[in-house]
Amino acid sequence: MSEIDEINTLKEDILQAPDIKPFIPILQKMPTVEVAEILWELTDDKLLEALLLFRPDQQGAIVNDLGFETQYFLFQNMNRRQFAEMFENMDSATRADFYRELSKKEQINLLPYLTKKVREDVIHLSSYEPESAGGIMSTDFATVLENMTCAQAIEKVRQDAPSKKMVYYIYVVDEDMVMKGFVTLKRLIMHSAETKISEILIREYVYATVDEDQESVALKVDKYDLVAIPVLNDESRLVGIVTHDEAIEIMRAEATEDIEKFMGLTPSDEEADYLDDSVKRHYSKRIIWLASLAALSIFSGIIVQRFEDMLAQVMILTLFMPMMTATGGNTGSQAATVVITALSLGQVTLKNWLQIVFKESRVGMLLGLSLGLLTYVNVVIIGWNSTTPEDYTLFYVAMVVGIAMTIQVFSATLIGSGLPLFVKRLGGDPTVAASPAITTFVDITGLLIYFGTATIFFTFI
Amino acid sequence: MSEIDEINTLKEDILQAPDIKPFIPILQKMPTVEVAEILWELTDDKLLEALLLFRPDQQGAIVNDLGFETQYFLFQNMNRRQFAEMFENMDSATRADFYRELSKKEQINLLPYLTKKVREDVIHLSSYEPESAGGIMSTDFATVLENMTCAQAIEKVRQDAPSKKMVYYIYVVDEDMVMKGFVTLKRLIMHSAETKISEILIREYVYATVDEDQESVALKVDKYDLVAIPVLNDESRLVGIVTHDEAIEIMRAEATEDIEKFMGLTPSDEEADYLDDSVKRHYSKRIIWLASLAALSIFSGIIVQRFEDMLAQVMILTLFMPMMTATGGNTGSQAATVVITALSLGQVTLKNWLQIVFKESRVGMLLGLSLGLLTYVNVVIIGWNSTTPEDYTLFYVAMVVGIAMTIQVFSATLIGSGLPLFVKRLGGDPTVAASPAITTFVDITGLLIYFGTATIFFTFI
Repeated sequence: MSEIDEINTLKEDILQAPDIKPFIPILQKMPTVEVAEILWELTDDKLLEALLLFRPDQQGAIVNDLGFETQYFLFQNMNRRQFAEMFENMDSATRADFYRELSKKEQINLLPYLTKKVREDVIHLSSYEPESAGGIMSTDFATVLENMTCAQAIEKVRQDAPSKKMVYYIYVVDEDMVMKGFVTLKRLIMHSAETKISEILIREYVYATVDEDQESVALKVDKYDLVAIPVLNDESRLVGIVTHDEAIEIMRAEATEDIEKFMGLTPSDEEADYLDDSVKRHYSKRIIWLASLAALSIFSGIIVQRFEDMLAQVMILTLFMPMMTATGGNTGSQAATVVITALSLGQVTLKNWLQIVFKESRVGMLLGLSLGLLTYVNVVIIGWNSTTPEDYTLFYVAMVVGIAMTIQVFSATLIGSGLPLFVKRLGGDPTVAASPAITTFVDITGLLIYFGTATIFFTFI
Repeated sequence: MSEIDEINTLKEDILQAPDIKPFIPILQKMPTVEVAEILWELTDDKLLEALLLFRPDQQGAIVNDLGFETQYFLFQNMNRRQFAEMFENMDSATRADFYRELSKKEQINLLPYLTKKVREDVIHLSSYEPESAGGIMSTDFATVLENMTCAQAIEKVRQDAPSKKMVYYIYVVDEDMVMKGFVTLKRLIMHSAETKISEILIREYVYATVDEDQESVALKVDKYDLVAIPVLNDESRLVGIVTHDEAIEIMRAEATEDIEKFMGLTPSDEEADYLDDSVKRHYSKRIIWLASLAALSIFSGIIVQRFEDMLAQVMILTLFMPMMTATGGNTGSQAATVVITALSLGQVTLKNWLQIVFKESRVGMLLGLSLGLLTYVNVVIIGWNSTTPEDYTLFYVAMVVGIAMTIQVFSATLIGSGLPLFVKRLGGDPTVAASPAITTFVDITGLLIYFGTATIFFTFI
């Protein structure tokens, strides 16, 4: 807590100060992610001015954590040579992402200032699909050959290390970069200097392929508790690694995307920041689902219309329409949440569909009976001052509404839990069976149940 | 994909085979997390039989990934000495979790079989709050002293390493375990053998305190891209570490809890598995919110009742009640999702409340106008065959309903985005402003807006 307060106080001080220079010695000792956080609050001009007071390696680390807009401002306003030096110190995955966003012309403007190695690296990495393993991998990894001794391997890592951030796993390759296995740095220092790498390398390893979806890669890093996962191309050549911190980022982004989809928001391709996003973009993110569902609710109007005569006769029924649809919607989206969560945590698969339906039937039955009873009481309370139709007592009406509620809750539970399974069965993403969609759908079925039950009890019995 | 298929095929084969023995050589070469996955599918008896065919260190690693129920079965059915040997090979955090769940009597039964070191470790770790840094930390870390040389430090790590899983960060402490800083294993091998640790140690480091909430710990690991974070007690002594894989687990668990809370489910304390949970437990997880909201919707009944006379006069208004409440609910929970997501990703804080309200007002205005227009069209379509009141044309009614919809969507956007901020301002968890709660709340305000607008246009104008 107090650390965060300290950073915030420092941030305030810097933002209010006319000159940032006196703060540089403090900032230089702080983690670059915190420096980035503070500098990002400044105007672009001030940020640039401050950034130039850092060493190029620090500049690279700081700029890693800034958004594309700010990076692009630096690209346009810095001396090309200075920018290139900073760029070379950025994380290989991040700088490839930046490069990908540039226009062809801008790319060609930047390339001549880069060293041959970085130039090739950037061109190579930026050629992959952004959401594939290739698109997120970094090339900061260390390699050794199978016939080296531990001492030779450590020596090679020492020489390579300044530019290789991730040296905890050292990848064993042949002359063509075909991956043979890996050794951990721990294993390397645990064995005697003369031990051959071929004797200690781990040949059974988990890897990703360049075109693998980023979510699948992140799940592997998580499942096998890896610090990094190697990425292989079609010829089994090692082309990159995805580190654990990248995996966390991806899992978080995917979780946000899932929630958004589930709540009927249209996820945007680019990373969005609430305040930076324009009103128009917020609008377009939300309107599609809202409008589709509003259009869909034309059906609820038609249903009510069909039963207009009954409503005119038994006016009191109107009072409980909102209760019926609201409770159904809540029940349905709860059930959908439970099933989608269980699916995404891998607790259930489509194979379990019968078990799920059976369990939800029983849960739905219990919920339906409880809420039916509650509704009975509600109706009696509200209806006390209302005019009941001549032929029926208030208790009879309350019973009818209660029974309709029981059926509505039971069916909403089944629809809410079944719809995600159904969408998944069709090969879709179960989160598309979104909460607003279920709510609207259950509204419609709920009105049918309500008026259907009423018809039976008031017309036929 | 094909790897997962392979595992599944192997799983099938093992489950169908009368004897698991022939598969052991294959299983012994696989990652223990996969072995755990396969063995967990067996009956408890068969699992125990299979487990005994592995080495104790493998047993420990496999049992790490089984659930408490299964671990408890092993505890009850294995020879105490065998169990203790396996237990000593488990991850220190996991075995402390297991120990914490045992009864006092069972704990006393287990302790004598453990070595002094493990015994003390288990008693110590299990004494912390389960959801604090102390409760999730592991004691598998390596330490060196400040006055050692790099060569001496590497030698110490080599000696300690077999029992220390995480040696990529090596913590520098004094004789009382007070933390002085840390060195990475990379830094250690990069410097010459004679370099003193005091010259290369990193003195500015991020740490957690033993009583810190687990979510806060996980966020630090994420923010600073750490492989592990040290945990210090009140006297600045190093008592444990929390590793990156533990941090991923926590973030995932917290994300699930957030979704559950947001959808009006009462999260249970214990880890729950969809199929293992009893119907009763599923029921109790859902009924609280449903019943409260159903009780709350008594108000929507009362509102409709107040306007019964108007409804009897302008019957056509009944048709659009469901449309009004459904669209309002969808709009409100969308807006809440957007704000809660932005809050949890740290894109906005309470300080930005005015900016948020201003942005949402504009978005709500646009959404309201669009949906109002759509509603106008809807009403004309549905109302074509309906009886309109004598004094008004269908177009007049459509205009009134459309205006009501515009106001409803605008206000639902403000309520949906404002409620999470308000709850947070009161010191609560913004996710409590849950989607069903907002839906039900907006239903009620929506009916007021609907009938209020209708009253103005049909009675006064």
